[in-house]
Formats: sequence, structure tokens, C-alpha cells
Amino acid sequence: MSKYPLIVRAVEWVDGKVRWINTNLLPYEELYEESQDHERIARAIESMEIRGAPAIGVAAALAIAATALKFSNINSVDELKDIISKAIERLRRTRPTAFNLFWALNRISNVLSRNYSSVEALRKAIVDEALSIYHEDIETNIKIGEIGEKLIDDGDTILTHCNAGALATAAFGTALGVIRAAWYNGKKIKVIATETRPVLQGARLTVWELKKEGIPVTLVTDNMVGYIMYKGLVNKVIVGADRILLDGFVINKIGTYSIAIIAKRHGVPFYVAAPTSTIDPVSSINDIVIEERNANEVRYIMNKMLITMPDVDVLNPAFDVTPPELVTSIITEKGIIEPPFRENIMKILSL
Amino acid sequence: MSKYPLIVRAVEWVDGKVRWINTNLLPYEELYEESQDHERIARAIESMEIRGAPAIGVAAALAIAATALKFSNINSVDELKDIISKAIERLRRTRPTAFNLFWALNRISNVLSRNYSSVEALRKAIVDEALSIYHEDIETNIKIGEIGEKLIDDGDTILTHCNAGALATAAFGTALGVIRAAWYNGKKIKVIATETRPVLQGARLTVWELKKEGIPVTLVTDNMVGYIMYKGLVNKVIVGADRILLDGFVINKIGTYSIAIIAKRHGVPFYVAAPTSTIDPVSSINDIVIEERNANEVRYIMNKMLITMPDVDVLNPAFDVTPPELVTSIITEKGIIEPPFRENIMKILSL
Repeated sequence: MSKYPLIVRAVEWVDGKVRWINTNLLPYEELYEESQDHERIARAIESMEIRGAPAIGVAAALAIAATALKFSNINSVDELKDIISKAIERLRRTRPTAFNLFWALNRISNVLSRNYSSVEALRKAIVDEALSIYHEDIETNIKIGEIGEKLIDDGDTILTHCNAGALATAAFGTALGVIRAAWYNGKKIKVIATETRPVLQGARLTVWELKKEGIPVTLVTDNMVGYIMYKGLVNKVIVGADRILLDGFVINKIGTYSIAIIAKRHGVPFYVAAPTSTIDPVSSINDIVIEERNANEVRYIMNKMLITMPDVDVLNPAFDVTPPELVTSIITEKGIIEPPFRENIMKILSL
Repeated sequence: MSKYPLIVRAVEWVDGKVRWINTNLLPYEELYEESQDHERIARAIESMEIRGAPAIGVAAALAIAATALKFSNINSVDELKDIISKAIERLRRTRPTAFNLFWALNRISNVLSRNYSSVEALRKAIVDEALSIYHEDIETNIKIGEIGEKLIDDGDTILTHCNAGALATAAFGTALGVIRAAWYNGKKIKVIATETRPVLQGARLTVWELKKEGIPVTLVTDNMVGYIMYKGLVNKVIVGADRILLDGFVINKIGTYSIAIIAKRHGVPFYVAAPTSTIDPVSSINDIVIEERNANEVRYIMNKMLITMPDVDVLNPAFDVTPPELVTSIITEKGIIEPPFRENIMKILSL
């Protein structure tokens, strides 16, 4: 059991089904969805009902576990392997950038590649691996929080972008996990949350989950970051990550790079909090695909309110790239990684 | 007459009344309002129906002219001076940051301080001065455009923030005046407009007025600036200004400073286009009051759609300060001002 209250759960395993909170409806409505259909869960990831790199990884793993349990009249190990392989392929195509998705699905693929004496044995191995990924995510976040909170001083005001919170993981969060750990260890901290257009994860999700736990939070628009740093209102920045490369490039929600540049100018430390499952040990920066999402996310607020001409050209990259020279350190469950990143990331991953 | 089509008019003088387009309703509705009541016009400035530093100055001047004409049964010069002084004081309190407001009202105050042989003579002097401010604004913008467009190359993609366009002036615009002049002089340019939260002047106004004239425009959210500069998609930045200090500090719409920092990192020239009436020759940076506007501008989109918890704490500074070392040059109707700004601004203002 955790010494922290795990109040907000984004993705759970309940009686052989995946249960998740539809983050698109927050903060207006707290709606939980349940399914054992991997296609439904894949669509939930695509539409960002489930979002945040670790949560996507957990949801994909649990979707596979639910699929393994769903089909009761399977005649052979190969038949189940075939069903699971197809589900893995479908889930792989949901979102291209977050690395934890591929990391989690690869763990399931590895289970699949072994030999099994019975359908039941395979089924059990798949479910066990998925549940490990799920439980490890929560433990990992708490470790990240406890390791990272040593960097936080009593009285700090911490700026965070998007939502790297409980709502981006199975529970507790990464960037917000560090903030939670500092808060529950008695540090009087304040959070500034950027609203994070276009999908407003800061305004909708970070504000909602911090207020739920009574952690002080102030909302700003994305373009206020320069001003509030100029006014000396921010002591530290902590953000999550969707993918981290060996050289220390951090791919994260659009806007992260701008914040990192501004933090550097003002001498504000810029921390990235993420599990080591976010680290992509293979890709180089030129391999990275930045997902370009639907233009209407920019033209409309939450698919509802048009804020411009309906036919205006739009760019909508979901992520950007922060280069290593702007990153103070990376907080993982295995310790804090400082520059030089390539050397120190390889050390921590035992590569 | 202008060699350019002056299609969009934000503030006009029509038969002794002030006529303006309610920019809060754009791009949904093209509603023109008319009034000769300075209180109504003051409220239009406060609520941002009329916004943009030069437009505010023009509207305030015309509001005074309308007031001078409105009261027909005035018995003495002193009585009219008293009415006009009170109207000036009311308009002074509308918005604290934009300098053109005070510059325009001071010009009227100077008219008022002279001696007049009749009420009619005073009335005429006030109306003449207000109409001069109005007509000069359009001429000034066209000059800024023609001087500034020499900095623009064929094929450039220019990033602009907020709306420093026809909708921020009597007509033609400052930053968008430079863009218009380049466009009508045959340069194939493209514009990237930042949406400019919280009030979305980029998404609503800049997109609307550029599309109306067929100038290519792409909309981005404010937090995409880092990414698009990293991708090399921007050749130049041009913004307007609400106030410029002798030392070259530029006070402009919130978000301008962040863009300037990012532009500097990427070696992208950062130009400010503004009439010399925006230059405050007296204040130092510590005197500047940054207007803090209603928190609901951040919590809601255009007073309509709640995007967060209704009781969340919010910061809502309307402007920020860009220091001179981030400004490449300032484009005015009297020429392009380069660093060192103090020396060169004093030279151009003949101070």
C-alpha cells in the first residue's frame, strides 16, 4: 500500500475489464467508461479519452489482457496468439509519438513469443504481464515522486505544462507525482499550470486533479510564461515526457520547448519527470514522427466553439522537441539523470 | 487617396458620430456600432469592442469631438471646456497601458488650454484636432507599411502576434500594415498568426482581416512558436506595440516577450511596427502599469465556454515587456529605428 492517497485513477483493471475516466469530459463531468474490447480502447486512445504517455501504455497492455480473457472458446495456443497479435498491431497504430505505448506492447509481444503448453497458460502469462505493467506504473510514479521531491524546496512555485499527472498515468503522475510527493511530505508549494492549447489538458485536467487534493494551483495561458518568469514568479519547471532519446532530447506536449527556452533565459531549472519506459534507446532525433492532429482542434475549443474562420489553414503538431542543453535533469524511478545525458542514461539503463 | 484598398475600418467618423466595428463579435458577426456618447465609447474601449493602441487613441479623440458637437445649447467657452475636460478624464481611465490613448487625449487637452472667442471656435478647434488624429493615423500606418516593407523579402513567412492590423487602428494597421504594403507591392508572402489567448485577437481578428484581403494566413496556438521556429518555418516576426519606452522596452500584448525570446534563439529578426505616438518619452520601466484583466477571460472562452474549474485562481496580465536586446528594430512613420534605441529614438523624435 502507498503512503499517499491515490485519489485519482485514470486507468484501472476491474473484473477483467479496462476502466478509464474519459478525460475529454473533464472537468465538466466525471465519467468512467468500461470495456474489454481492444478496438473500443484503441479509439479511446486516438480520441484522447485516455491520454498521457504512461496511461496510454498501461491502457494498451490492459486492453490486451481483456482481449485474452474475452474469448473463452479458443482451441489452440496459436489461435490466441493470432488474436493477440492483431490486437497489438491495432493498438500500435493509435498514436505515433509516445514511446511507452510501444514499450508496453513490446513487453506483451515478448510474452507471446514464448512456448506454451495450453491456451490457459498463455492467457495467464499475458494477463500477468499486463497487470505487472499496470502495477509497476503506480510504483514507478511514486518512486519518481520521492526521488524528485528532493529537488523541491519549501515555498517553491513550480510551473508545469499539459498534464503529467494521475490523469496521464495509472495513478499519482510523473511531474505531478513529484509535486504530490513534495506536498504530502509537508512542503508548502504552489503550482502554476499552463492551459495547454489546443486540447487544454492544463486547464481541464491539471487544475482538476490538483484542486481535488487541495494543492494550490494558478492557471495561466500558454503565452504568459515569459511574463511570469520575468516577474520572478516561478522557481522551477517540471514537465513530463512522451519520449526521451539517449542524447537527452525530450519529446513532449507542444509548448514544452518554448517553456524550456524561456526558463533557460531566466535561470529557472527545467526538470523532466518520466519513467525509464519513456526512454527510446534506439531512435535518433531524425527518426521521430511528430503527430499532426486534426486542424479542428485549433479552430474549435473542444469540438464545440469556433474561434476563427472555419476554413483557415492551421498547423497542429501535438508535440515538440526540447534539446538536451535546455534540460537541467531527468527524474526517473531509477534516479536523477544529469548531463551528459547519453553517458548517464546508458548507465542508468545498464546499456 | 491611398494607393491601397482600405477595406477594413475599425473606427470611423460619420456625420458627427463615432462608428466602430465591435471586434468582440468577430469573426462571427460584422456589427457596426455608432454613438456620440463618450461614456458609451469609454465602455466600448474597456470591454475591448474597440482595442489596439492606435484605435483606442483615435476612438478617444473622436469621442471627444462627438461630445463637443452633441451639446448644442452651451452658453460659454468655460462650460464647454468643463464638459470636455470631464469626458477626457473619463476616457483616460479606460485602459492604463496603451500610450496612444494618453497621447491623443493630451493633444485635445492642449487645444482646450488655449483661449477662444466663442463656443463655436472652441468646438471647431476640438473637432479639427480629433479629425487630424484620425486622418493622421491612417496616413501614418501607410507610411509605416511602406517603410517597413523594405525589410520584407519575396517569399517570406512572417509571424505576427495578436492583431496589430486594420482592426487595431483607424485602417491599414501597423504590423499588418507592413504585411499589406509588402503584399500589394507584389511580394509573395505568407503570414503565421498566433491565436493570442485569452481574447484570441489572432484567431478572430488577424485571420479575419487577412482572409478578407486574400493574404495567405495560417493559424497556430501560442505554444507552437518554439516548434515552428525550430522547423525553420518563420523568416521574420512583426508585432505592434502598446507603449515603447525611450530605452527601447516594448510593452505589447501578453505573449510578445515569449516570442521575442524564442526568435532570438533561432536568429529570426524581431520587428516592432508602431507610430511614434506609441513612444512614451517620460516613463521608465518601473513606472509601467501592466493591466490585470478579469480572471474569467482565462477561465472562459469569450465569456461563453468554461474551460476549467470556475473557481480556479488565475493570472491575467494583458501585456508583457520585451527588453531592447530582443528587438531587432522599430518601424515607425518617421523611419526605422535601430539600436542603440535611446539615442536613435531621441533623434527621430527630435528630443
